[in-house]
Amino acid sequence: MNVEILSTGEELVTGALTDTNATWLAARLLEAGIRIDRQTCVGDDESRLARIMTEMAGRADLVLVTGGLGPTSDDLSAQAAARASGDSLVLNGEALVSMTSFFQKRGWAMPQANIKQAMLPSRATMIENCAGTAPGFLLEIGQCLFFFMPGVPMEMKSMFQSQVLPRIREQFQGLTKVLTSRMTVFGLPESEVGARLAEFPGRFPGISLGFRASFPLIEVKCLLVSDPETGQDAAGQAMDGARAFIQEKLGAKLFSDKGLTMEEEVGRLLTLCRQRVAVAESCTGGLIASMLTDVAGSSDYFLLSAVTYSNDAKIKLLGVCPETIAQNGAVHEKTALEMAMGVRKISGADWGISTSGIAGPGGGSPEKPVGTVCIGIDGPGVSMGKLYRFSFEDRAMNKKLFAVMAMDVLRKNLVQG
Amino acid sequence: MNVEILSTGEELVTGALTDTNATWLAARLLEAGIRIDRQTCVGDDESRLARIMTEMAGRADLVLVTGGLGPTSDDLSAQAAARASGDSLVLNGEALVSMTSFFQKRGWAMPQANIKQAMLPSRATMIENCAGTAPGFLLEIGQCLFFFMPGVPMEMKSMFQSQVLPRIREQFQGLTKVLTSRMTVFGLPESEVGARLAEFPGRFPGISLGFRASFPLIEVKCLLVSDPETGQDAAGQAMDGARAFIQEKLGAKLFSDKGLTMEEEVGRLLTLCRQRVAVAESCTGGLIASMLTDVAGSSDYFLLSAVTYSNDAKIKLLGVCPETIAQNGAVHEKTALEMAMGVRKISGADWGISTSGIAGPGGGSPEKPVGTVCIGIDGPGVSMGKLYRFSFEDRAMNKKLFAVMAMDVLRKNLVQG
Repeated sequence: MNVEILSTGEELVTGALTDTNATWLAARLLEAGIRIDRQTCVGDDESRLARIMTEMAGRADLVLVTGGLGPTSDDLSAQAAARASGDSLVLNGEALVSMTSFFQKRGWAMPQANIKQAMLPSRATMIENCAGTAPGFLLEIGQCLFFFMPGVPMEMKSMFQSQVLPRIREQFQGLTKVLTSRMTVFGLPESEVGARLAEFPGRFPGISLGFRASFPLIEVKCLLVSDPETGQDAAGQAMDGARAFIQEKLGAKLFSDKGLTMEEEVGRLLTLCRQRVAVAESCTGGLIASMLTDVAGSSDYFLLSAVTYSNDAKIKLLGVCPETIAQNGAVHEKTALEMAMGVRKISGADWGISTSGIAGPGGGSPEKPVGTVCIGIDGPGVSMGKLYRFSFEDRAMNKKLFAVMAMDVLRKNLVQG
Repeated sequence: MNVEILSTGEELVTGALTDTNATWLAARLLEAGIRIDRQTCVGDDESRLARIMTEMAGRADLVLVTGGLGPTSDDLSAQAAARASGDSLVLNGEALVSMTSFFQKRGWAMPQANIKQAMLPSRATMIENCAGTAPGFLLEIGQCLFFFMPGVPMEMKSMFQSQVLPRIREQFQGLTKVLTSRMTVFGLPESEVGARLAEFPGRFPGISLGFRASFPLIEVKCLLVSDPETGQDAAGQAMDGARAFIQEKLGAKLFSDKGLTMEEEVGRLLTLCRQRVAVAESCTGGLIASMLTDVAGSSDYFLLSAVTYSNDAKIKLLGVCPETIAQNGAVHEKTALEMAMGVRKISGADWGISTSGIAGPGGGSPEKPVGTVCIGIDGPGVSMGKLYRFSFEDRAMNKKLFAVMAMDVLRKNLVQG
């Protein structure tokens, strides 16, 4: 089976936007046992789009298209699909109802411009968009089945998982079963993870091993396409062996064997221990709080973050001793410890954690260069401030690294406790 | 001139890696006045690669290829290029010298496996790689000029800028200049932005208009490829006219005519006014602080954020009256106002802003459904709490929308002040 992805959008071919939709789709398809043959990006030009669709229809069995379903004049996927299939656009009643109800539910009036989104090729089947206004559709062009999805990642992902993938499974029977296993690592560079797992392919020839760096985490992923004849049991056993091997090689740096993010793992542990945390942030600027509260239900264990950028706020709000800052500076393990103690005290949380450091690009000195961070923790049986040095110069990377590092310090204490 | 990019690599078509090389190349080419027509990703399969190169040679004038030049068995670009051009691989003396000296300079022995990298099509011209071992090359296939570069981003970028781009300029004379202009909009759906600018293409036929939704913002971009004969002055005037037209149509919803993000624009205004801000966050969970501190230099105007998730923290830390919460609940305009006043007071900032709302997925009620947020602001001449209702159900979207909304309230007050 020949499968292709077509990503449309002027911003893709002008370099304004990287096509992450295609990566995401390719990975999801692979999990479903489907390997894509080719992926193409093209700009918003109707005749070029139609030509490419015609080419694809001539060589592929299945094409997933993203983008070009919006209400504006540069959204041309439906027109191009109609042209490539010798069809014409008509007002699709089902699509109009779906869009109208999307607006009604929200108590909005539907702008006239949106009606364009319900103009689909006459032979197309509408696919509902639960996350936005642009309906998707499926259409056969020649012998090839095309699925048209929105370009907005959230809408595309929701539509793919709830509607497109089930139809693909139905249409293309006999897809093999795929087992996947995700683990998350913090504190090792990708090259080191790769080196430690160098023997993996020899030991587990049926399982493909992949790494995905999601700074500062590395996700390790095992993928096993199981032979329908050998069956699920043997596949499950092979996967268990592979996971045990990886855990042994990566040790404590592998912090989640379920592929959780650091904030999800910390949330899981706090829930398990029935303990609560408060945060005092300087250089991370609220990022720890924002990451922790990205997890639904975090209000059960997250009480407070005091984002104290100024020294004055550290003193007045958190009760850090003015002398501590005067003698050591704000970026110091003692200051960090007092911040953690202060925020624990004012919040009544079981744990206080803190950061004070230099994210850059400015603010560094020879003794405390950009990349320096002090992390404090105060909780049952532990009161500690510690200085760490990282070698990145990028502000956003440092903020993220410092935030994950502070959560990792808490995590280690939760696991040991 | 028809230009394409071909990105090769198994990791690209399995979704293990996002192709950022193509984005980078497309942006650099656009700066040089060259718009790409199509970008394709394909895996490591010699015959498929050769077939695609043949197709491209039939329709393009220039193709940039990345990847597949390494020493391992899955690096197949040179073989495929030879096959597509009816050529064969020979040991390229120049490439061998270049590689040998790369190793010698570093005092390393050259592994036998690397010799494969010097095997190039007999009609190819070697291109030196100053940042790595894999030499690049250029080759005509049919009427089309192909540049082959490494896939490692650092090596590719260095080779492109020092060697490939100068040759492209030389080969394709008379490249046009490109002017771009970016503006940022908040508070209008993309469909409405499109509808208001519907007359644009008719009024400014030489300028292409694009929209990019970066939730909850819409970026509006104008791109003008200037005719070398008309010259730069006419192009600049046309662009000024286009910008004025867009500003008139979008009014105050267009908050930056430089394409700034909301946090950048707020930072710019605060710096201009020499004023400082403190934030009290409930439902946004630190996201406002994190966004504000993403901007380098934000420590000049950002003092503090108190991420008070619990009622207790709102009362103890911010001095919100217990009765206000008891009578109205935490999600109420009065509570939000007291939060803003409290954080302004404890921080000594010129402005206090606050959020209290329901990001979801849980926590909603018929009176206060998910998507409800109260925003407070306290500053020179204004003390206000106001309830807003949005209709998204996604936690991450709501956090982001609430955060940008609160910053926008501050922005409007800064602009008026």
